[in-house]
Amino acid sequence: MIKSTLLFTVFLTLAFVAPHNSNAQGTKTSDQQAMIKALEWQEAHPIYAMAPTDWTNGAYYTGVVQAHKTTNDEVYLAALKNMGWQNDWQTAPRFYHADDIAIAYSYLYVNGKRKDLVDLKPTEKFLDKHLFESNQWTDGSDAERSILWWWCDALFMAPPVIVEYALLKKDDKYLDAMHKYYKQTYDLLYNKDEHLFARDTRFVWKGNSEDLREENGKKIFWSRGNGWVIAGLALILNDMPEDYKHRNFYLDLYKEMAVKIKQLQQQDGLWRTSLLSPESYDHGEVSGSGFFTFALAWGINKGILDKVVYTPVVQKAWTALRASQHEDGRVGWVQNIGASPEPASADSWQNFGTGAFLLAGSEMLKLEK
Amino acid sequence: MIKSTLLFTVFLTLAFVAPHNSNAQGTKTSDQQAMIKALEWQEAHPIYAMAPTDWTNGAYYTGVVQAHKTTNDEVYLAALKNMGWQNDWQTAPRFYHADDIAIAYSYLYVNGKRKDLVDLKPTEKFLDKHLFESNQWTDGSDAERSILWWWCDALFMAPPVIVEYALLKKDDKYLDAMHKYYKQTYDLLYNKDEHLFARDTRFVWKGNSEDLREENGKKIFWSRGNGWVIAGLALILNDMPEDYKHRNFYLDLYKEMAVKIKQLQQQDGLWRTSLLSPESYDHGEVSGSGFFTFALAWGINKGILDKVVYTPVVQKAWTALRASQHEDGRVGWVQNIGASPEPASADSWQNFGTGAFLLAGSEMLKLEK
Amino acid sequence: MIKSTLLFTVFLTLAFVAPHNSNAQGTKTSDQQAMIKALEWQEAHPIYAMAPTDWTNGAYYTGVVQAHKTTNDEVYLAALKNMGWQNDWQTAPRFYHADDIAIAYSYLYVNGKRKDLVDLKPTEKFLDKHLFESNQWTDGSDAERSILWWWCDALFMAPPVIVEYALLKKDDKYLDAMHKYYKQTYDLLYNKDEHLFARDTRFVWKGNSEDLREENGKKIFWSRGNGWVIAGLALILNDMPEDYKHRNFYLDLYKEMAVKIKQLQQQDGLWRTSLLSPESYDHGEVSGSGFFTFALAWGINKGILDKVVYTPVVQKAWTALRASQHEDGRVGWVQNIGASPEPASADSWQNFGTGAFLLAGSEMLKLEK
Repeated sequence: MIKSTLLFTVFLTLAFVAPHNSNAQGTKTSDQQAMIKALEWQEAHPIYAMAPTDWTNGAYYTGVVQAHKTTNDEVYLAALKNMGWQNDWQTAPRFYHADDIAIAYSYLYVNGKRKDLVDLKPTEKFLDKHLFESNQWTDGSDAERSILWWWCDALFMAPPVIVEYALLKKDDKYLDAMHKYYKQTYDLLYNKDEHLFARDTRFVWKGNSEDLREENGKKIFWSRGNGWVIAGLALILNDMPEDYKHRNFYLDLYKEMAVKIKQLQQQDGLWRTSLLSPESYDHGEVSGSGFFTFALAWGINKGILDKVVYTPVVQKAWTALRASQHEDGRVGWVQNIGASPEPASADSWQNFGTGAFLLAGSEMLKLEK
Repeated sequence: MIKSTLLFTVFLTLAFVAPHNSNAQGTKTSDQQAMIKALEWQEAHPIYAMAPTDWTNGAYYTGVVQAHKTTNDEVYLAALKNMGWQNDWQTAPRFYHADDIAIAYSYLYVNGKRKDLVDLKPTEKFLDKHLFESNQWTDGSDAERSILWWWCDALFMAPPVIVEYALLKKDDKYLDAMHKYYKQTYDLLYNKDEHLFARDTRFVWKGNSEDLREENGKKIFWSRGNGWVIAGLALILNDMPEDYKHRNFYLDLYKEMAVKIKQLQQQDGLWRTSLLSPESYDHGEVSGSGFFTFALAWGINKGILDKVVYTPVVQKAWTALRASQHEDGRVGWVQNIGASPEPASADSWQNFGTGAFLLAGSEMLKLEK
Repeated sequence: MIKSTLLFTVFLTLAFVAPHNSNAQGTKTSDQQAMIKALEWQEAHPIYAMAPTDWTNGAYYTGVVQAHKTTNDEVYLAALKNMGWQNDWQTAPRFYHADDIAIAYSYLYVNGKRKDLVDLKPTEKFLDKHLFESNQWTDGSDAERSILWWWCDALFMAPPVIVEYALLKKDDKYLDAMHKYYKQTYDLLYNKDEHLFARDTRFVWKGNSEDLREENGKKIFWSRGNGWVIAGLALILNDMPEDYKHRNFYLDLYKEMAVKIKQLQQQDGLWRTSLLSPESYDHGEVSGSGFFTFALAWGINKGILDKVVYTPVVQKAWTALRASQHEDGRVGWVQNIGASPEPASADSWQNFGTGAFLLAGSEMLKLEK
């Protein structure tokens, strides 16, 4: 009798304590709790490179948008509105720089949720200048930059915003401009053998002795860089009109990259920061892995990728992503701001890593629904 | 021996875990902890309809003011000062709209706590325009709005601010103007049979086939709407000079409504969102219930309501309000922004719901002291 | 079998719960966690006297700077950048008032961590006016204030900022001006018998019947006031060039005060708010104690103070400081804003108390490394 009382008491104790354990896995509820804890920790630890309107916040809040879309939980929308209000719905200041419009993805989303709240004039001004006026990267005045989106991260920063804005304006001229610039980046940085993007021209593999290489001699393809691209493709394809004339270009690129990304997943479910040289920094990195998980799970949910083949990939990845989260909500194992493979640690975090986690979770919640 | 050690260990474990359980009830300490957790959760989740100066924050921070008055805990005053500073002590922008002055209740309170910190010019400008200049709702230019405070929520938003401002200025002209407008609202919306306010003229019961009704045919009297009124009355009466000529009007109205509100409490201690049709959405709703609990407990503490009769009412209500709070501090079961009865859920929250919780708690702490 | 399972289960439960206990002591890891919890609680409870640019935040974020220097943990730097951005890198407004430049200590630190982010113009403008233009306290227009830094707190607020700015500008004129004003304060307020500073001229002991005294007749030397001075000396000496001509003045003063401060430590490891009359308010006070612990531990780590003699002092103090922290991270037992000894309580907190805690921790982490 005492024993069974004891057992019962211990059971109650554990049951009571359990909700604190954000790592308890295996249920949608637990996934939702983990995502909210990630949001809450990140909101309590604001961080950015140059300003709260910059690309780091842009990527983070893009994850918050998708989490709200999937769950309809007010905590996400409240965070988005609060951020937008505090930013006075401004973009970052450099109209020639794709990074500086990423934050507007969130403004456009909030605008669709509540009329008369969002001021879209800064977004409009930025896009009109960015897409239709020449600047230092398109007019030839910068000797090293010959195209607008000269680094692959840009394909996440601007195009998904442009798609949303084109939908709002019901004007394909934005999509056409986007396609022009996207194609330039593709032509410059996409490696058609590897089906991966070089981060920028420094990393374009030419097969000669001047190529940048990992210390072991292997080609350098950056995990987060390719994460930006394929996650951006999922965002673009999700909302681009089915009948848009260049849609298949994006769809084909997405499918081709997805096959390759699947192949590069490591045994623990995560990707290494140097995709073709996993041994360089032999631990999972969460920002790239989160973007990949999001992109692949999106493809399964849309019926674009084979469910039987890809579901084990994303489930393994999501389990590992969940394990990267600390008890208090912090998402660790995120490579710091950079432009090429560098190591991470259990404690390293950035807001865009939390964004990648939320993006992944927002599609994982839809699996098997 | 082992058994007793085990029992002791389990006891220790539970004792240790206990402070995490915000729902542990029955003591003033536990109530204070629950209130601080509510504040802290809300501060970590800023939300508003249009701006941080709007009525939603106004109602929330009115609860924070009362919590500080009762407990003198620095966490409340710090939150008030921080909010005021971030808002630059501005009201919301529409001088004709009672909602847009609600936030000034907090500014006036902070001003009484710390000289030379608060800028009261925006409050002064608003009130002078609101009360003494004609506008679109009083000059006849809006065909549907013939009085300044044409919806019952307004009786919470503006009058308590006006009472505080009149005290500061030592000038009854503010009280006289308030009374003029308050009486107009009373004449337009108060149902002298039901002793409840219609939310606005759409809900005024005329006894004909054009009356808006619940699906079951019953009259529509909104819980939160009447919560705004009677909580506003408690705030007004608390600080209105004892010798003010129209004071008895407010006192009589308060007492009359209190009797009715008591009758409408449901078995679980909470009120339904449609007061006269509890079956429409048969679950407790926390914003209305919080305002009622605050108002009734205030009346007990002031000796206006019969202690023996009303104490069980508010204790039952407060127990249920406490149970609506999540482990992490979130106050749930709050109907979203609206203008008539709609359902809530365990997860639904808004800052004004947290405000209602704090208002209720601030008077419950004084009971039996 | 059941028994051992039970024991194991209970063990697991306790092990699981343990990380919640911020008071678990004795390891660097535990100290780091306690510091991060202090930061996180303070960030979630912003407070200041007049503005987020004021001396209270200045002192708090000086603690955050030192915590980042020691741990290199991104959470500290993120908090500093966020604060600076929100403050638009402004000082408080009174260029004649040392309090109003304290916040710039953090701006200068962030500027050293990330180029092109911090706007140092407001700091530059303030210091040029503060040090090189006459004002109401130096031109004779204020009958009661004959020197720039007429209260001892000022020796924490401005001098460490000036040292950092002098290093940045590589210009000794800032150090020379600082020394001129520092020496005036020393001459006015330092008691060469007691080796302590009077808070201001009201408390300068003249040995006659008009001296302000504690109720028991003893001299009034304020703990936090002297904490400001000796913590300021540690900050000054840490970065002042080894070959600066007046360096020995600061070093000698530091050593002389350290001996006295050590003697005044009480049995529980903390200092009383009235240093020479511990019985006036016979409980530890955390802001003064935190500054003393920081200053003494710094001296040990720099090899200025005898390790064998002073290590037990700071270890005892740090253990007591850790015990003043609440489960949720709040640092209690902090005397409120004031200018002379007043009591504190387990619940009383201020941001500068958290700053003192972080300062102490940042040096304690270096001990015995």
